[in-house]
Amino acid sequence: MALPLAPFVATYWPHILSALLCFVLGSVFARAFSTVPPYGRRRRHSSVADGPLDPPPNDEENTLRVPYSLPGYGDGEMVRRSDRFYREMDTRRSVRDISDQPVPIEVIENCLRTAGTAPSGAHKQPWTFVAISSPEVKLEVRHIIEEEERINYEKRMSEQWLKDLELIGTGWSKPYLTRAPYVIIVFKQQFAVTEEGEKKTHYYQEISASIATGFLLVALHNAGLVTVTTTPMNAGPRLRALLDRPVGEKVLVLLPVGHPEEDATVPDLRRKALGEIMVLKD
Amino acid sequence: MALPLAPFVATYWPHILSALLCFVLGSVFARAFSTVPPYGRRRRHSSVADGPLDPPPNDEENTLRVPYSLPGYGDGEMVRRSDRFYREMDTRRSVRDISDQPVPIEVIENCLRTAGTAPSGAHKQPWTFVAISSPEVKLEVRHIIEEEERINYEKRMSEQWLKDLELIGTGWSKPYLTRAPYVIIVFKQQFAVTEEGEKKTHYYQEISASIATGFLLVALHNAGLVTVTTTPMNAGPRLRALLDRPVGEKVLVLLPVGHPEEDATVPDLRRKALGEIMVLKD
Repeated sequence: MALPLAPFVATYWPHILSALLCFVLGSVFARAFSTVPPYGRRRRHSSVADGPLDPPPNDEENTLRVPYSLPGYGDGEMVRRSDRFYREMDTRRSVRDISDQPVPIEVIENCLRTAGTAPSGAHKQPWTFVAISSPEVKLEVRHIIEEEERINYEKRMSEQWLKDLELIGTGWSKPYLTRAPYVIIVFKQQFAVTEEGEKKTHYYQEISASIATGFLLVALHNAGLVTVTTTPMNAGPRLRALLDRPVGEKVLVLLPVGHPEEDATVPDLRRKALGEIMVLKD
Repeated sequence: MALPLAPFVATYWPHILSALLCFVLGSVFARAFSTVPPYGRRRRHSSVADGPLDPPPNDEENTLRVPYSLPGYGDGEMVRRSDRFYREMDTRRSVRDISDQPVPIEVIENCLRTAGTAPSGAHKQPWTFVAISSPEVKLEVRHIIEEEERINYEKRMSEQWLKDLELIGTGWSKPYLTRAPYVIIVFKQQFAVTEEGEKKTHYYQEISASIATGFLLVALHNAGLVTVTTTPMNAGPRLRALLDRPVGEKVLVLLPVGHPEEDATVPDLRRKALGEIMVLKD
């Protein structure tokens, strides 16, 4: 097959070589000047964060509207309620010292129901919560994560990152993954498949599933439970396979859930003051 | 300057042309085969969702740990608390019929303080909340968004999208943006700038700022207020400029906040049942 081309190649090899070289150079430049941050590609500004305003709350042909009202607290009561709620939430912390004291499944269910009340782009509710109490499955999850974490620590993480981690004493070992009575893995659904087998992209799925995770964290704290919001680097596909989730679902965060150990400690860090996070235009 | 090159160009122009052509081809291919979904570039799976597990809670040299405990409710009390909280949150809805009844700034402040208690990647707290009560600024925000929305509706949105929107009766006009006593714009901070002028990328900023938005939505509802979570398509850069936010900050969501109108209505939609969002491995 290649033989008839041989004289051509012999004559024009400098042209062919320069063409190939320039092709490679072009592709390298194109990649270099696309918006690639140090740790992977990210969405362009016009993508999710700037998706369509006011998406339809329902894509079914459903225009029926119903009245909506709230208790309607007075100003003083609103101030008191919001202050009390803030003080309560300010006692929440990410805790890694989780005890093996059992937690009733009803509490987990109610907290996940609460997560499900979150708003979402076009009301797609693009989230799946896998709650694991099975010791065998928790052990497999731990194996997967520790295996990846060992590689992360040994090969994938920068020296600066490792130094940062040394300071707080974390490592690839994650005992809380088998000790906590529940491990909840939050999946974001990138698309839905209709009955006709058609893929329907879910917009805002990362924002939506993260907002729902926010609702879940508040609900867990309100119930008296602790967790630590973790993002299992490079373990997502293996976790998805282990838990039989469809291809369209991606691991968003992983939450070991339970009571704090009696001697639990947390890093002594501070939260930004209101003036550091709020800008008022009045 | 170019003249001495003229004989060279005259002789070798086919080579130069083919080199240029291949450079362009290479760059086109590189772009075509990068992971670009229909609505813009997105993160690769190994990026944010799979970021490092257990990031350091603080990147300052701070290893001090403090004891942590919680009230420790009994099982029955946990079930009751979680059930009550779910029922309360289940009454929350996205409301576009917002009245001009004033809201005390203390309530907004407490709700934003609550948002600030959310966890974040490496405790970077990568969020800024701009709360607007100034009628002039709200009007400018409305102008920007309505101008972009008019183009969105006329040129940028698909026919299917427009059809969906027709059904619920939305359009480019957003009266609630000037009527609501407060408009809160949530910015995610893509990086921080150190005192030495060095850029420090914030990982997980979209997940983190969205989780904080979840906390904010819960806090607003708890205070008796309503909002609608919107994402202003293509208006982000102009809003950032209007509000004098630094380049590293990007609009995540926009929330008009206030009391519901007396005759407020919401679409009659349903939330997925627990069995549709929860998978139990026990």
